[in-house]
Amino acid sequence: MDAARLSLNQITLNSLDLPAAVAACERHEIGAIALWRDKIAAVGLDRAVQLVRSAGLHVSSVCRGGMFTDPAADPAAVLEDNRRAVDEAAALQADALVLVCGPLLDRDLAAARARVRDGIAELLPHARAAGVRLAIEPLHPMMIGVRSVVSTLRQALDLSDELGGDPGDEVGVVVDAYHVWWDPELEGQIARAGTRIAGYHVSDWLPETSDLLLDRGMMGDGLIDLPHLSGLVADAGFTGPVEVEILSRRWWAEDPDDVTRLLRKRFEEFV
Amino acid sequence: MDAARLSLNQITLNSLDLPAAVAACERHEIGAIALWRDKIAAVGLDRAVQLVRSAGLHVSSVCRGGMFTDPAADPAAVLEDNRRAVDEAAALQADALVLVCGPLLDRDLAAARARVRDGIAELLPHARAAGVRLAIEPLHPMMIGVRSVVSTLRQALDLSDELGGDPGDEVGVVVDAYHVWWDPELEGQIARAGTRIAGYHVSDWLPETSDLLLDRGMMGDGLIDLPHLSGLVADAGFTGPVEVEILSRRWWAEDPDDVTRLLRKRFEEFV
Repeated sequence: MDAARLSLNQITLNSLDLPAAVAACERHEIGAIALWRDKIAAVGLDRAVQLVRSAGLHVSSVCRGGMFTDPAADPAAVLEDNRRAVDEAAALQADALVLVCGPLLDRDLAAARARVRDGIAELLPHARAAGVRLAIEPLHPMMIGVRSVVSTLRQALDLSDELGGDPGDEVGVVVDAYHVWWDPELEGQIARAGTRIAGYHVSDWLPETSDLLLDRGMMGDGLIDLPHLSGLVADAGFTGPVEVEILSRRWWAEDPDDVTRLLRKRFEEFV
Repeated sequence: MDAARLSLNQITLNSLDLPAAVAACERHEIGAIALWRDKIAAVGLDRAVQLVRSAGLHVSSVCRGGMFTDPAADPAAVLEDNRRAVDEAAALQADALVLVCGPLLDRDLAAARARVRDGIAELLPHARAAGVRLAIEPLHPMMIGVRSVVSTLRQALDLSDELGGDPGDEVGVVVDAYHVWWDPELEGQIARAGTRIAGYHVSDWLPETSDLLLDRGMMGDGLIDLPHLSGLVADAGFTGPVEVEILSRRWWAEDPDDVTRLLRKRFEEFV
């Protein structure tokens, strides 16, 4: 894919703080970035906004809101934190606020999923008022106990249906290659998603992945047919920035400039 | 669940050979066992048959046929090995031959899945002639690169539909709690499976599982609502033995008698 579409999800260069990640984008002529809230908080929102504006960077997403599932958490505090996430995404003019919908903390999966639905429904008016797109990111089923009870694109879209909204104003979804590539329903559900695709993330699935969280592969090193997936997402109408999001102990240990050069090359060759 | 329903999948006591696993069943008053082909081969089929018969053990399944996906393998050799697996299941009067449908070895998922369909279709006449039920076991999506391109119950049932057969003579499926519990479509697909459920396996999903293959939990130690799942499987009409199948470095390191006592207790309490 043309590197003009590339967005650097900053967790790919996890050792860098926000100013350094912005500088890496400038150095490597990358036009978009996805920001994580902990890194935003570390420099302050105003400074983060100023940094991306002066670098002329487009913000493809803010990662992440959500985490609605803790039965012991105060729902008002969870909502308030999510509203702050919306405000940050608004200030940064991000294409979307990514929602990671929370892990399963007890054995009641139905209740956890209901909490997710209710949490998004409560957040939605604030997001609409702020002009921020919410995007549910289904995460790989292996992450249900640590990250997300939303595990498939079908489930995310069913949730979006349930939450309603006019066409163009619906809750969006993120298609992350790593999380959804294995799904036998992938083709149909991406087509169904259509304009609800609010983000497309790439990395790769290593044949013998050794860790459930931090062993994502560089594009081209694994089993995902990314050109096929990119074609499906394009056919569905998505034309936005494509985030490279690689959570990997291996790549985090390398020099960020080397990693950035490589991911840019692999993006052009394998995405 | 009543321990009268318990079947010991012998990989749960992986350090034991077949005679020792049979003896453990006798010692702990377990009436059924699931056998692995490498352990059968180690003593020879005739001896395996004699051992389970003289112990009065019912064989709930033979693990495993399948592995159709290697593009470099000779299809005739793969078919021949699967036919031998069918013959072993027939000799042992097993309820089913479990099919693990093979990992993805390149980036062509559609081709690998087609190979699975064709492989089962070719094997089916031999299985029917031998009176052996084939049972597709969908494995957790995280195992696609090492074990199975069949990842969901819906996909296994679609495959069963495609392979045809009269009611009662269709290709069956295995519902393994560990592999399918996360699935948002679980309820509907188990109901759809109905009499095609040829096996029900239990273990648990640990909240922070640390390994993609060998970190299954003991029932009651994890996040799976097994009584709910057992209810769904019962409502679908399944009345057969319920296999305890725990692939776990942790439990493999413990004394097999201690593990068997515990799993029997947990089976009664948590399944």
